[in-house]
Amino acid sequence: MEYVTGSCQPKDMEVSDLMLLEDGAQAKTHGMVYSIKDMGDFGFVTLRKRNALVQCVYEKENSNFELSDITTEASIEVTGTVKKDDRAPNGFEIHLVDLKVLSMPKEQTPVNLSKRKLGMTLETKVSMRPLTLRNNRERAVFKLQEGVVKGFREYFEKEGYTEIRTPKIVANGAEGGANIFKLDYFGKKAYLAQSPQFYKQTLVGVFEKVFEIGPVFRAEKHNTARHLNEYIGVDMEMGFIDSFVDIIEAETGALKHMFEVLKRDYDRELKILNITLPNIDKIPMVKFKDVKEMVAAEYNRKIKDPYDLEPEEEQLISKLFAEKYGSEFVFVTHYPVKKRPFYAMDDPEDPKYTLSFDLLFRGMEITTGGQRIHDYDTQVAKMISKGLDPADFETYLMIHKYGMPPHGGLGMGLERLCMKLMDGVNVREASMFPRDMSRLVP
Amino acid sequence: MEYVTGSCQPKDMEVSDLMLLEDGAQAKTHGMVYSIKDMGDFGFVTLRKRNALVQCVYEKENSNFELSDITTEASIEVTGTVKKDDRAPNGFEIHLVDLKVLSMPKEQTPVNLSKRKLGMTLETKVSMRPLTLRNNRERAVFKLQEGVVKGFREYFEKEGYTEIRTPKIVANGAEGGANIFKLDYFGKKAYLAQSPQFYKQTLVGVFEKVFEIGPVFRAEKHNTARHLNEYIGVDMEMGFIDSFVDIIEAETGALKHMFEVLKRDYDRELKILNITLPNIDKIPMVKFKDVKEMVAAEYNRKIKDPYDLEPEEEQLISKLFAEKYGSEFVFVTHYPVKKRPFYAMDDPEDPKYTLSFDLLFRGMEITTGGQRIHDYDTQVAKMISKGLDPADFETYLMIHKYGMPPHGGLGMGLERLCMKLMDGVNVREASMFPRDMSRLVP
Repeated sequence: MEYVTGSCQPKDMEVSDLMLLEDGAQAKTHGMVYSIKDMGDFGFVTLRKRNALVQCVYEKENSNFELSDITTEASIEVTGTVKKDDRAPNGFEIHLVDLKVLSMPKEQTPVNLSKRKLGMTLETKVSMRPLTLRNNRERAVFKLQEGVVKGFREYFEKEGYTEIRTPKIVANGAEGGANIFKLDYFGKKAYLAQSPQFYKQTLVGVFEKVFEIGPVFRAEKHNTARHLNEYIGVDMEMGFIDSFVDIIEAETGALKHMFEVLKRDYDRELKILNITLPNIDKIPMVKFKDVKEMVAAEYNRKIKDPYDLEPEEEQLISKLFAEKYGSEFVFVTHYPVKKRPFYAMDDPEDPKYTLSFDLLFRGMEITTGGQRIHDYDTQVAKMISKGLDPADFETYLMIHKYGMPPHGGLGMGLERLCMKLMDGVNVREASMFPRDMSRLVP
Repeated sequence: MEYVTGSCQPKDMEVSDLMLLEDGAQAKTHGMVYSIKDMGDFGFVTLRKRNALVQCVYEKENSNFELSDITTEASIEVTGTVKKDDRAPNGFEIHLVDLKVLSMPKEQTPVNLSKRKLGMTLETKVSMRPLTLRNNRERAVFKLQEGVVKGFREYFEKEGYTEIRTPKIVANGAEGGANIFKLDYFGKKAYLAQSPQFYKQTLVGVFEKVFEIGPVFRAEKHNTARHLNEYIGVDMEMGFIDSFVDIIEAETGALKHMFEVLKRDYDRELKILNITLPNIDKIPMVKFKDVKEMVAAEYNRKIKDPYDLEPEEEQLISKLFAEKYGSEFVFVTHYPVKKRPFYAMDDPEDPKYTLSFDLLFRGMEITTGGQRIHDYDTQVAKMISKGLDPADFETYLMIHKYGMPPHGGLGMGLERLCMKLMDGVNVREASMFPRDMSRLVP
């Protein structure tokens, strides 16, 4: 009988291993050929490894192969001698001796993937993402995105939250409205989850504090720079809150920790993307009503929509708070009942408003949150006042009927946050394989 | 201007804090009332906190409230005196002095949630999951599931894998067949992803080693104890493999680490669920063809389906290997081409078989994996031989055309693994809100 033990050592020398080698040491490593500079008897080969580029030097007299044996995007294993060189990425280069070709492409890529910036329209870049993600800058965007997720997760774990994974095929929409994808489910009507709202509230009754990082589906019929029809939602929900400000505090703590994780583990990507992380010592908090008036006064604008913030207003709020208070983040609180979902708790001090908030970052809403109704009668009454039939929400209302602690939470759009971190202008820049009204591939 | 700093201290005393208190110390903590035992002037209140139960003692003469002020599932904050007691859960109880009611249920739950085992059919239990998950044993199942996910993630992170999140609305199915949910996507036909197969392979060309833990949708028309129509897939894919055994080794390593994490962080849940983790020092590996014959000989069976394993055969293989080789896990390798998808690499030594494997655990397949075709012409030819039109897979085939390292990976069903860990019999036991042909709620 043959056995596996799972204890085999990794066979490849990673960049971190190679960096530790002495000048003149032998190195063997694999990767994909990022670029080749062939100058006859001499040349350079840049190897793309999983987390960095490695510069290799080809000298015909010392090498047992020809540069013409390889092309870009070939998968190869090379053997050679390490030379320390401060000008090379990561401080070393490999002088090539032997080559083993593991796989050759059938054709050369239609674009040069090794340019520092690809220099193509976003539309073209996205259409060719299976290839363009191989560009060192492009892939750094999504490595950094991993770091953002890791930062949030670490924070919530440390704070005693339970990670949950809730169904994406659901019997009814949590956010109401027409922005919902329908599907046929064995002859029954079903929907794709617009948010994990009902489930995360339900699980507060079980685990007290929960978070979920997963796909969210919105059938919104506008193709804008800020909308995706499928995105990654970072959702949390906490029980036993004293006030909705507890949620705001938790988000601030989570963002701070996330930035620490990026500095700790994603320095390489921050440098490639030329990102300076925003200052987040303290974040101002201002009421919806007040900030509307502040912006109207400061920028001499008329208030057109008294119930919501227009995208232009979000930009002006960020501008105002960056200039006056030195903060690129602003919590706007107490949104009108009219624009908030049926589960939002009204402000007892002014029931036209809710105990809710949005977080704006560099001119864009990246989070929506607030306290939820936990009392059964209050929730049923509010459903009715919003034109909903409580009978449609029977399993959701179980939690209100049989007992829930005061609670609240938030949902954050991962791509929006990442896009703004990079100072981008289109959310598709931060979505690997974006889904919008006209795009289903790749 | 008001500011938030995210640095507020947690206000609640967790069980771990309470355990550290001296006998006689004052304690203040919140939770939901799990059970009440009212014996007149004396009684017990069990408080359900996020990760454990706390026993509280009510003595009328020392308490500033009546036991009738609360009911089960009320959310309360209690103040009292800690008494060390080895018989109480976690070694202490709280002698109650003050009570603050944070929220009262409207009605009492139709079932007693605080029983050690709920004692109802799985069907009833699942229908009432918003409540039944509040049972201490039921919630332990899903806390443990978090630990399983955490274990895998820690392993893959440590090994240099990148965590990815790929689209769930897709233009075509990765696994073929009719087991796919269709939806209308702005007038175009779209599908729910049957697996992240195409995307994870694509991202091997970018990050070399990737993993994804996310929802998977299968429109399978059988309501069995082993099928779910939506489940959590644990997927990984690695580049630069020497052989498909590299993937098997990686899975073995991941399982070992996962068990370590369960022992390290989920001891409480292992005890509640009475789980003894299986021995996993080494896992036997046997060829499909050979194991078929072994089982036929050992149990005097006829081989009915030469191309796949029947569920009963999977059970017998596990029985055989547990008895003869002391292993509850078995890797079965080299499945027939006929039953493996179009991206599976054929075995060069016998092209009727593939370089693939399943992992069986306690009588059930929990993982499918193998080496993938990386060569463009080979992949196109195999698509055609399987009756597929390569033109339907244009963006997928970009990676083969423009270069891919030898690679492979696996997909594991989280609920199946968890169900078998608990020695369960129905996969719904390990799915919080299962989706099957007849179930869309809760």
